[in-house]
Amino acid sequence: MGGDHGPSVVIPAAAIALVRHPQMRFIIVGDETTIRAELAAHPALADKIEIIHTDVAVAMDAKPSQALRQGRWKSSMWLAIQSVRDGGATAVVSAGNTGALMVMAKFCLKSIKGVERPAIAAIWPTIDAECIVLDVGANVGATSRQIVEFALMGAAMARALFGMKAPSVGLLNIGVEEIKGVEEIRDAAAVLKEAPLPLRYHGFVEGDDIGRGTVDVVVTDGFTGNIALKTAEGTAKQIGEYLRAALGRSLLARLGAVLAQGALRALKDKMDPRQLNGGIFLGLNGIVIKSHGGTDATGFACAIDLAYEMAASRVVEQLGNDVSHFHTKLELEGAA
Amino acid sequence: MGGDHGPSVVIPAAAIALVRHPQMRFIIVGDETTIRAELAAHPALADKIEIIHTDVAVAMDAKPSQALRQGRWKSSMWLAIQSVRDGGATAVVSAGNTGALMVMAKFCLKSIKGVERPAIAAIWPTIDAECIVLDVGANVGATSRQIVEFALMGAAMARALFGMKAPSVGLLNIGVEEIKGVEEIRDAAAVLKEAPLPLRYHGFVEGDDIGRGTVDVVVTDGFTGNIALKTAEGTAKQIGEYLRAALGRSLLARLGAVLAQGALRALKDKMDPRQLNGGIFLGLNGIVIKSHGGTDATGFACAIDLAYEMAASRVVEQLGNDVSHFHTKLELEGAA
Repeated sequence: MGGDHGPSVVIPAAAIALVRHPQMRFIIVGDETTIRAELAAHPALADKIEIIHTDVAVAMDAKPSQALRQGRWKSSMWLAIQSVRDGGATAVVSAGNTGALMVMAKFCLKSIKGVERPAIAAIWPTIDAECIVLDVGANVGATSRQIVEFALMGAAMARALFGMKAPSVGLLNIGVEEIKGVEEIRDAAAVLKEAPLPLRYHGFVEGDDIGRGTVDVVVTDGFTGNIALKTAEGTAKQIGEYLRAALGRSLLARLGAVLAQGALRALKDKMDPRQLNGGIFLGLNGIVIKSHGGTDATGFACAIDLAYEMAASRVVEQLGNDVSHFHTKLELEGAA
Repeated sequence: MGGDHGPSVVIPAAAIALVRHPQMRFIIVGDETTIRAELAAHPALADKIEIIHTDVAVAMDAKPSQALRQGRWKSSMWLAIQSVRDGGATAVVSAGNTGALMVMAKFCLKSIKGVERPAIAAIWPTIDAECIVLDVGANVGATSRQIVEFALMGAAMARALFGMKAPSVGLLNIGVEEIKGVEEIRDAAAVLKEAPLPLRYHGFVEGDDIGRGTVDVVVTDGFTGNIALKTAEGTAKQIGEYLRAALGRSLLARLGAVLAQGALRALKDKMDPRQLNGGIFLGLNGIVIKSHGGTDATGFACAIDLAYEMAASRVVEQLGNDVSHFHTKLELEGAA
């Protein structure tokens, strides 16, 4: 029921995702009448779907604490998360209220043992490939311990999802010299440099290193990460506008654009924010994917794909193991 | 002597800027022999230039405190700033060590009365025009009082430079709702909403609002601002790479690119980071412009142009007046 469009986006998106992953099954939680009306147009979904009916939906502008108080046990968001906890579903995908989704997911699924704060990770396109950036908005601010945990979680995700043995990890900062930035980041750097973790600690990286692909995992606090992500999205949109305007200005340019239309369409697809739709909640006992609230069926289907890949690559298990090894080592060192 | 190239960039840049502003005069501070060697190729500069010789130059990797200790009274950076303090120059432009430049400028020129922390402002291209973003790296973190001051300084710059009566000002945040973000930002918002300032307070803005041009002035702390700026630069570069690759891939695309080359060149110019080269130090008793260290003569000339425009529009006076009015009002309110 979440996002700007509810079932009218979610149901067609499920149909798109089903074509790509025919073994997928869906539990759709929400108002049954609305859902059934949408399903009529997608007969392929008929025997792939279970509906859990509820009248209660979390409002997009509800405060997280209020959403938890009013929506617990009964809202569509809660029941969808609960289906992951109870094993009926492997992952939950929602276009609803981000803060409410995080609070409910924490309350229902609980954090993985040893994780102080779950984070939201984004897959960020680079010149040649992709990297993982976290936290992009679960928290405002982060302690050095939380930054180290984010690094560990991001690396676990890269290990599982990208099949890397020791992903490179950088801490987002305003300079690469050791003296730069705030204390929390410098302290986290000191831990990451020394600790025997399943990652290659690269050092500090700057804003332009993200898209350049300098490292596989970029770690930052949720405030900075969210602003960096949205700034990049805004810049991509802005340049798209420039390009459109430039190519429409003269007859010659328009003719050139027609000849190059295949290439320009490929570029447009590459820059399409829907292709990388989906914030990944990391550090919970289950897979939770947050889709953009305003996305369409194509975008929501990408968020479903992401949930599928996260499940198939067993990220949650990888993450749990890595965090538990790290803490065991710290305890052994503490005891020694 | 600063930046990656020293006089071999600065002297040709002065020659470029002189064509655009024939009434300009230059004081070039640094190693006289090197400077004279470069000047030989630019006879137009001959009677427009004064050279202040010094052997001492601040290293690009010196810590600010160390640079101040070792470079005070005698380094090229110091002597250039001092020429502004003593009235010989109206503005100083440097491609040197940013932290050292800020520390020396603060020490030599002093902050404007009532300004707690000078900030670095950037002019940021938007879809239709430009906006001012500050702080992009003078400080890490900012108190609510400093955020209010940044808003006031950014608005004063927009009033002087863009000729606006009441520029719109937004605070960069991770959401537009009043409850979002850290305490410092929420407290600053409360002040800006109430205070009778020569600006229109818009409210919170997000990362993608910067390039969209939602407001004339975007205010943030130096850590977030620096990362947002570099992320946008990196994204622009990345999309430039995508475009180049897409247009080179097929014969048809290459042919189209040839036909559209005028339009594509205009786009390239628009996206050229050299066109907007120059961090503006705001809140000091004088104009200080920091050029990118790695820029070429074209880029450094843009930083000189910026210094010229800042001087011509009397930004420093505007800023001093606005800050002093604001503090007078606060005191009157406090006394009432």
